[in-house]
Amino acid sequence: MTGQGRIIIDCLQYCNWSREIFEEMRAGGVSAVHVTICYHEQFRETVTNIEQWNRWFQQHGDLIVPGRTADDVRAAHESGRTAIIFGFQNCSPIEDDVGLIEIVHQLGARFMQLSYNNQSLLATGCYEAEDPGITRFGKQAIGEMNRVGLVIDMSHSAERSTLEAIELSQRPIAITHANPAFWHPALRNKSDDVLKALGASGGMLGFSLYPFHLKNTTECRLDEFCSMIADTADLMGLDNIGIGTDLVQGHGNEVVEWMRNGRWSLDMDFGEGSKDNAGWPDPLPWFGGNRDFGNIVEGLRAKGFTETDIDKVMGGNWLKFYETSFGPQEKA
Amino acid sequence: MTGQGRIIIDCLQYCNWSREIFEEMRAGGVSAVHVTICYHEQFRETVTNIEQWNRWFQQHGDLIVPGRTADDVRAAHESGRTAIIFGFQNCSPIEDDVGLIEIVHQLGARFMQLSYNNQSLLATGCYEAEDPGITRFGKQAIGEMNRVGLVIDMSHSAERSTLEAIELSQRPIAITHANPAFWHPALRNKSDDVLKALGASGGMLGFSLYPFHLKNTTECRLDEFCSMIADTADLMGLDNIGIGTDLVQGHGNEVVEWMRNGRWSLDMDFGEGSKDNAGWPDPLPWFGGNRDFGNIVEGLRAKGFTETDIDKVMGGNWLKFYETSFGPQEKA
Repeated sequence: MTGQGRIIIDCLQYCNWSREIFEEMRAGGVSAVHVTICYHEQFRETVTNIEQWNRWFQQHGDLIVPGRTADDVRAAHESGRTAIIFGFQNCSPIEDDVGLIEIVHQLGARFMQLSYNNQSLLATGCYEAEDPGITRFGKQAIGEMNRVGLVIDMSHSAERSTLEAIELSQRPIAITHANPAFWHPALRNKSDDVLKALGASGGMLGFSLYPFHLKNTTECRLDEFCSMIADTADLMGLDNIGIGTDLVQGHGNEVVEWMRNGRWSLDMDFGEGSKDNAGWPDPLPWFGGNRDFGNIVEGLRAKGFTETDIDKVMGGNWLKFYETSFGPQEKA
Repeated sequence: MTGQGRIIIDCLQYCNWSREIFEEMRAGGVSAVHVTICYHEQFRETVTNIEQWNRWFQQHGDLIVPGRTADDVRAAHESGRTAIIFGFQNCSPIEDDVGLIEIVHQLGARFMQLSYNNQSLLATGCYEAEDPGITRFGKQAIGEMNRVGLVIDMSHSAERSTLEAIELSQRPIAITHANPAFWHPALRNKSDDVLKALGASGGMLGFSLYPFHLKNTTECRLDEFCSMIADTADLMGLDNIGIGTDLVQGHGNEVVEWMRNGRWSLDMDFGEGSKDNAGWPDPLPWFGGNRDFGNIVEGLRAKGFTETDIDKVMGGNWLKFYETSFGPQEKA
């Protein structure tokens, strides 16, 4: 598949990466994937993760390339490869040092969540009882992220912090992987207020396929998922939505424990699961990996989406967002 | 001074950087300076130094720009600014991790010494009693530096290690700041064997103006210095020599102590100085800073160098070397 068909972009995955998974990206015609390279790692640990990706780019250069710009995504599409875009699910890589924002951008990072479930130095996570909003350091970080072109991602952040980030940021922000709370009221899903403010500011929502974010979890049907997409387009705009599957493949339970507990918890935290359901959720029958994006296309078509609108949802909107988000801020 | 006259390149300085010094670079018409950003700093500390430079590039963008390619130097020359090229005088920033070589290249580093005076993990320094040559890690590092385009600099390395580095490296290496031992037999200056092997392999020598590397130190006359340049050109080739002043401006004695002692010594090490002469040497009357490169031009002219040859020595040779050295290695 070389330069044919629509550009498909998945704006969040966290797999146990291997040549097999990169081959599946090609089999599924995926032109870009935003990959999580940090949950709780501090700067030096994150650099080690980037070193690992640098080696994968060498070893599997026939399948994957670094994705730092929209043009990198287009070139990957043309050459039948997948552009890999680095993102952090937490702000731990910048530690307490605003200067590290430009450094991680120089090393290829293009998305950073201001908080992951918990309170961070920058913002509040969605599982905290109280949300005091963006911190003093958070305001500095937003300004610097705007300047260099590191996209603010509020997928795991709390309501007030998210609304303040949308307001404070001079550039549109993203919620790379979440669904509307009106459809499934999980703590990780987003209110109408957030989604409307996000759309009105030119921001982007990526629809998650992680079962805990879906109505009836693994029982969720494709047509229900696509109805939700249609309803969300009505709420926040068809130009402001895309895919961010939150796909996890091949990881053992020690990885979900790392995501949920990092080094911060002495008690076991079960996140979106529970003591009786502590591991990964079962995968969806109609979306198990990178080969299955065609099913979503079919579902949208059955729901009455035009081919042009399907292009937008499956990758065109993200590509347009990357075009204006990944480089330095234009001087006012 | 915008895009006029010859391209002047100084391939080693370590000043107490300030707007005043950047202005002196412009007053002297210097198109590029290789600046030392590390003596003994490990990775994280070196990143902090890069953060400081990132801020200077923002604050003084009218005077200085990042120098990562030969084209950056040409563009700086055309726009009347100075390209700043990052280099390490030691391999401490890569710690014990070969993957950090690509990381520091991504962050802008273009030169790295394999050792600084002492034995390192990669090679032997010029003040050690024994020189066992390039280590196992050193061989891996040379291959990786070749691959990404991080230039091997052996200015402070010992004889055998230097000859082995020239031999092992698939790309020409540099001695950015030293003089021939035949002229002044300091431990830091280089033997005829090294200089001939360096020239024959397409490598570069930058002539130092640090008084300890000069005959009669601060008493050295300009015409003696230029005679030495002519003799070195005869030995190793006129296309393989340039300037690497080792200029130090504005630093207190705590900085020379850091250079000499780092964190490795409990006893005070006086380096090229002595207990009775522990501080910085006095500056030369005919070279005190970035405004004085015209004096060297005059000295070369008086010595009978043609204008074409002066262009080469003052910057043209370095620019040509940068052109083929700073990018990824061509596949064989």
